[in-house]
Parts: sequence; structure tokens; C-alpha cells
Amino acid sequence: MTDCIFCKIIDGEIPGNKVYETENVVAFLDANPVSKGHTLVVPKKHVEDIHGAEDMDYLMDALVKVSDAVEEAFDPEGINIAQNNGEAAGQEIFHLHFHVTPIYNGNELEIEYNRKELRDGGKIADRISDRIS
Amino acid sequence: MTDCIFCKIIDGEIPGNKVYETENVVAFLDANPVSKGHTLVVPKKHVEDIHGAEDMDYLMDALVKVSDAVEEAFDPEGINIAQNNGEAAGQEIFHLHFHVTPIYNGNELEIEYNRKELRDGGKIADRISDRIS
Repeated sequence: MTDCIFCKIIDGEIPGNKVYETENVVAFLDANPVSKGHTLVVPKKHVEDIHGAEDMDYLMDALVKVSDAVEEAFDPEGINIAQNNGEAAGQEIFHLHFHVTPIYNGNELEIEYNRKELRDGGKIADRISDRIS
Repeated sequence: MTDCIFCKIIDGEIPGNKVYETENVVAFLDANPVSKGHTLVVPKKHVEDIHGAEDMDYLMDALVKVSDAVEEAFDPEGINIAQNNGEAAGQEIFHLHFHVTPIYNGNELEIEYNRKELRDGGKIADRISDRIS
């Protein structure tokens, strides 16, 4: 995936502000941060999105380590973790990545949840659970 | 944590629309969904947020399985995964949980990223990486 900007950062072809690296995963600062310390946790293996992340359990450990370090480093009010799949969900780079975004005053990331009451919960749950092996 | 609503769902004290369950993790529908199939992935062990999630790598496998199943079940345009830590970041239930939110038309979840250019990236990265063991 030579055109992938994240693969290039991982390979060192273009610079990135790395904060953490293991055999399988790397974390570096977002180049257009929402807030100070906004970091991306990225598997080294190129997969497009969450659907390619079987056998990437190590991502969770990296998320915890980066979140703990960001918390210690900058003492934010909160931290938002987000991972977007598909353009409709806001994905811009098609190499799986998790945003770790420190929240200082709540204005960095405005999320509006348009919540409804759950209807037909049993049917919906069955339809999902039937598809989990 | 007898007052925790998620612990009560996990223990079966109050009903929930479960879609997936293992020894360590459970997934059930959000009671106030943003969209059809909006599911929460939750560790059975009560921890408040991401900072308590060392040794919970199994959460990533559950996220992939639930995302795959939601995709198959409802064919959304995209999927957003989010995990909020702290009231300032939008956390409402203080038992760690990941939202898996199918996006159908982009109106379910409006996220406004107030992005800036990265400054002092080297210094910020060092400050984080110094705190990762």
C-alpha cells in the first residue's frame, strides 16, 4: 500500500511524531490535532478498517498505554477514543486508526447524539447475534 | 458496584438486549440508540474507564465481532466506534463501554472536529512517550 500515508509514516518514509511503538503497533500525533496530545493508535499491518482487525487484540493494550500517558502528561478533563469506518462515519485515511483525543474544555470535539428510544430490541439483538460466530 | 446499571445488566438483574457474551465481555443494545443496531461492548469486570483496562485485550476481539455482525445485519454506510472517558468527554455511565454505532445517513451522530495545525509536535510527543513504560 505505497500510497497510504500511515504506511509511509510507519516505514519512516515521511516523518511523524511517534509516541509509542511495538512490533505490531505504532502511535503518533495527529498532524491536525483537535487538542494538545491528540494521538493516533495504528496497527503496522495495513488494514482498511475495523473489519480487518481480527487478531489485532494488541491494539487495546496500546490504547490503554497511550491514554494513560496522555492523561499523565497533560491532565485533561477527559479523553475521547474514536475509530471511524467508512466515509459516512468520518473516516478520512483508509488505514485503521483509533483517535485518542484529550478533552480540556469540551469544545474540541462537539458530538451530537440524536438518541431515540429503543424499539424492537429483541428482534434487532437477534439479528446481530445470529451473525456472530 | 451494586449501583452500576451495566453490572446489573451483566448479572441479569435488569433486562438488556444482549447480542454477544463470553467469559469476560458482553455486548448489548444501547437503550437509547442513535441508530438501528447501536450496540455497547462492555467488560464484565467493573472498571470505570479506559485507564482500568489493562489486561482487557479481549475487548478488541469483541469490537471486531460486533462490528462485523452489525455490518452484515444492517448494511450501514459506515460504523463509528467511540469510548468516552470523563464527563467532559461525554461519559454518562461509569463502567467502561465502547459504542458501536452504525451510520446510515450521517445524521445520527454529528461530530464536529475543531482541528488545528500541529505545533511543537516533537515536544508534545516526547512528553507522552516519556510516560509510556
